[in-house]
Amino acid sequence: EEDGKANVWLPSLITETPQEGFELAIKLARMGVKSTQSDKETLFREREKYSQDGEALIHASEVIAVHFQTVAAANNHWK
Amino acid sequence: EEDGKANVWLPSLITETPQEGFELAIKLARMGVKSTQSDKETLFREREKYSQDGEALIHASEVIAVHFQTVAAANNHWK
Amino acid sequence: EEDGKANVWLPSLITETPQEGFELAIKLARMGVKSTQSDKETLFREREKYSQDGEALIHASEVIAVHFQTVAAANNHWK
Amino acid sequence: EEDGKANVWLPSLITETPQEGFELAIKLARMGVKSTQSDKETLFREREKYSQDGEALIHASEVIAVHFQTVAAANNHWK
Amino acid sequence: EEDGKANVWLPSLITETPQEGFELAIKLARMGVKSTQSDKETLFREREKYSQDGEALIHASEVIAVHFQTVAAANNHWK
Amino acid sequence: EEDGKANVWLPSLITETPQEGFELAIKLARMGVKSTQSDKETLFREREKYSQDGEALIHASEVIAVHFQTVAAANNHWK
Repeated sequence: EEDGKANVWLPSLITETPQEGFELAIKLARMGVKSTQSDKETLFREREKYSQDGEALIHASEVIAVHFQTVAAANNHWK
Repeated sequence: EEDGKANVWLPSLITETPQEGFELAIKLARMGVKSTQSDKETLFREREKYSQDGEALIHASEVIAVHFQTVAAANNHWK
Repeated sequence: EEDGKANVWLPSLITETPQEGFELAIKLARMGVKSTQSDKETLFREREKYSQDGEALIHASEVIAVHFQTVAAANNHWK
Repeated sequence: EEDGKANVWLPSLITETPQEGFELAIKLARMGVKSTQSDKETLFREREKYSQDGEALIHASEVIAVHFQTVAAANNHWK
Repeated sequence: EEDGKANVWLPSLITETPQEGFELAIKLARMGVKSTQSDKETLFREREKYSQDGEALIHASEVIAVHFQTVAAANNHWK
Repeated sequence: EEDGKANVWLPSLITETPQEGFELAIKLARMGVKSTQSDKETLFREREKYSQDGEALIHASEVIAVHFQTVAAANNHWK
């Protein structure tokens, strides 16, 4: 975000493979978290905590699943 | 909301890029929160709290993910 | 509900603008709550409580997001 | 369920109006709860409790929202 | 699972009626739980507990709702 | 992940049967968890804990349900 408006991190939803689409879904989930808490130290500390907590890990996986639906649809499910 | 009905904050779901669509999804998630709690001081206080809480950050990211599905569909996934 | 079956509160999912669609989504989320707890005093008391709780505010925003998907689809995303 | 297989409670997803569709969504949400806990006394007791709890009310509203998406799609959004 | 790979429990998503589709959604939700905890005693014990807990019952109903969307779409909403 | 970029675990969303699609959904849910916590010991410990907890089991089942929607759509619901 140090780059301001010039920082393009999501130029497209199109990926070459389903697996790259899954990686994009992970990125989208993280950017959602970052949009609510932009302070890097707080993010790092909370990430350290919730990555040790089974319920939170499942919840993080759920957010990825919702984004993966979007990315998969954008790519016509790579058919 | 000081403008009453004249306050148009959502004229369209169309955005030029996926990234602007993601920003719109963030806005929609926040307006959903605001619709339930319009008092700015309470909002600010609660936002301060939940932005320090990993589980709540993941949940906020989930709401953005649901809205991003809607915005992406509205934009034909920017294809 | 004092009007019984004559009480039509959802004649259509069509709205003129996305913003009116968002307002309809808020209404649908509230009617869902009301369907489980119709007593106005209890509703008022619980609403008072959860509107002071960040996690509950995020959850309320999520329900609106799900309904907004439905309303947006009904309106062909106002394209 | 005392009627066994003869008990048809979901002959169709088609409804005449969006509001009847919303009522069907409420029914589907309840039948989902009942499928996990069929004992009427336990259901009644738990329903008494969660209908007094704001967070649970929001969650119940969310389940209705998911079913309403399905019912609305089945009805081509009553267009 | 005693049958190993030969155990076919999901030959198709097609059902004759919406109600059978709902029953399939219940089955899918249960198979999801079983995939994470295959020990029958633990499953039975946890099921005994969560079926007595209103919030968990609502959550179980939500999983059924998500699967019912899938099954309904597979059946073209039984139209 | 010891294989780096060469590790292809998601070449396609297409499966021969609905049941294989369900198994793929389980895999996607697990890879989502793993993306947030890659340490195998921590994953194993947390999985041991949440697989003993009814609410967490339901939540895990929900993530599978969301991914199953995606996989089913990719396979045109195996029709």
